[in-house]
Amino acid sequence: MSRFWSSTVRGLTPYVPGEQPKNSNLIKLNTNENPYGPSPKVLDALRTEVASTLRLYPDPQAEDLKHAVAQYYGISPRQVFPANGSDEALGHTFQGLLKHTKPILFPDITYSFYPVYCGLYDIAYETVPLTASFEIDIAAYRRPNGGIIFANPNAPTGRLLPIGAVAELLTQNTDAVVVVDEAYIDFGGESAVPLVARFHNLLVIQTLSKSRSLAGLRVGFAVGHEDLITALERVKNSFNSYPLGRLAIAGAVAAMNDREHFEETRQAVIRTREVLTAGLRGMGFEVLPSAANFIFARHPEWDAAALSGRLREKGILVRHFTGKRIDQFLRITVGTDEAAVLLCRALERIIGA
Amino acid sequence: MSRFWSSTVRGLTPYVPGEQPKNSNLIKLNTNENPYGPSPKVLDALRTEVASTLRLYPDPQAEDLKHAVAQYYGISPRQVFPANGSDEALGHTFQGLLKHTKPILFPDITYSFYPVYCGLYDIAYETVPLTASFEIDIAAYRRPNGGIIFANPNAPTGRLLPIGAVAELLTQNTDAVVVVDEAYIDFGGESAVPLVARFHNLLVIQTLSKSRSLAGLRVGFAVGHEDLITALERVKNSFNSYPLGRLAIAGAVAAMNDREHFEETRQAVIRTREVLTAGLRGMGFEVLPSAANFIFARHPEWDAAALSGRLREKGILVRHFTGKRIDQFLRITVGTDEAAVLLCRALERIIGA
Repeated sequence: MSRFWSSTVRGLTPYVPGEQPKNSNLIKLNTNENPYGPSPKVLDALRTEVASTLRLYPDPQAEDLKHAVAQYYGISPRQVFPANGSDEALGHTFQGLLKHTKPILFPDITYSFYPVYCGLYDIAYETVPLTASFEIDIAAYRRPNGGIIFANPNAPTGRLLPIGAVAELLTQNTDAVVVVDEAYIDFGGESAVPLVARFHNLLVIQTLSKSRSLAGLRVGFAVGHEDLITALERVKNSFNSYPLGRLAIAGAVAAMNDREHFEETRQAVIRTREVLTAGLRGMGFEVLPSAANFIFARHPEWDAAALSGRLREKGILVRHFTGKRIDQFLRITVGTDEAAVLLCRALERIIGA
Repeated sequence: MSRFWSSTVRGLTPYVPGEQPKNSNLIKLNTNENPYGPSPKVLDALRTEVASTLRLYPDPQAEDLKHAVAQYYGISPRQVFPANGSDEALGHTFQGLLKHTKPILFPDITYSFYPVYCGLYDIAYETVPLTASFEIDIAAYRRPNGGIIFANPNAPTGRLLPIGAVAELLTQNTDAVVVVDEAYIDFGGESAVPLVARFHNLLVIQTLSKSRSLAGLRVGFAVGHEDLITALERVKNSFNSYPLGRLAIAGAVAAMNDREHFEETRQAVIRTREVLTAGLRGMGFEVLPSAANFIFARHPEWDAAALSGRLREKGILVRHFTGKRIDQFLRITVGTDEAAVLLCRALERIIGA
């Protein structure tokens, strides 16, 4: 700690991202990356954009990307806010739309970055327990709040709140912003984007890191009523005028436009998830129903931290969280069929199933 | 304004970036872009990075870029903080190192984003007038403060504070962080980076947008004592774990490593600046001495806003600021020799010189 640090910095407990090992021989099932590469059309668009025009600033509003997202969802470009990854969209959302007098609400088990943002922007929050089966109980959110945020499907559980329940939650909470963080929605859920027309307090946040296979490009976006988008634009234009470079914009546009590659790869991930889930259940694992590109699983007889360590010895990375209620679970990214087979074999050897 | 906006958003006066026109026939001398493209080695590195590995997250710490900057300056990688453009580095700096009880100080005429950050993070500030000849008077900064920030060369004046005066300012201000924003330093100034070893409260911020011709890629960095860098890392890891994508890192590393292209292009810009300055002075313009890739000029008989409008009619964009003391100046980016000739011809026709 240094006397030059602001009190904000002193009080922070930063987020810890999953390990990004230099050793590429590891089977990486720890950060929910897509096992399939991005669309070849994305790579073509990027190659075209690699030119001397990189000397010029990008479009600060990334209008082309707003239009591509708008076209994909059949909404207006003015309802779209592009960002440098969905984490940046979340950061601006906490500062611009979730900082009020009343505390905000989010599940006790969810994306562990939410309390970090609260620390960064000095936002009061209360956590709402998931049910015993790790589901969001929308009745528990019927209380005064400065906003609500949750991931859907939730992380790291993978459990989905059905779209009807999302609408019901919105119906009962009209006085503050409700943020649905849909990083994993394309792997089995129905997006809340169409509800934006009905609920002017709804903000949906998505990323191109998962279902569009572009974690390395850093693009996400928020969708909501124009008033909410204006708030995010105001924060963005007070922080970084040009958050998305020319390559990010060009690649993201191509990704949103290629529905065929998107459909093929997400269906492949969904198929592998079902095979992997069955395999793990066959070995005695409890696997929560997942609508994401990862599964959340525990074995009644094996300590999760120990299992994670043993898998690492065998060259397989999975993620283990130490939080209450979930410290006996492993979060395992759904990779290729081959990776699922290797994982199951390794687990069989470890637990002797 | 919406009831869902936080009080922060309500109070903001966002920064307004220079126009990025869609019409590429315009001669763009309004946003200080480099007229020469990035190094061919940068383009090669980017092409290599356009691959299916974009499905994977980048290195959250951008270690390769830390090393490239460290090697360039002969410092430790732990003294380097990479960011999504220098504006992001500035944002984290305001929040993490310039937010204290006492007001921070910056020149009355400088990068107009500084007061915007103060609004975003609720930081008190006082402006310190430049001298009549638009120079920084370091004696005027000898007063209690929570930090000092200025651009060197300054924007939009282009005037340089010599490195000896920077060291003197640091000697007289040891109780708070001093930030030197060196976006334009490579066009005629001496960087304060070597002073980081002596002054643990010094933070130097640079960008690859100008002298490395990469405005479209979005990369900047801060250099300072490890304690200051740790503060920025803590803010970054509470905001966005992966601010730089794989392409940004690869391109920036190649740019830092290619000293030859860097030297050639910056010298060409400096030569053109001198020719352009002489040309404008010949027409009766007052041109401030510039150490940047732009000049700041006024004509005693011509209104700056009118001149800017007339130039635009002729397809030439320059930037006009409406602030006190500078509203009769034009900020003109130094482009190619050809652009300088076209600009001078257009001005000759307008003012009949």
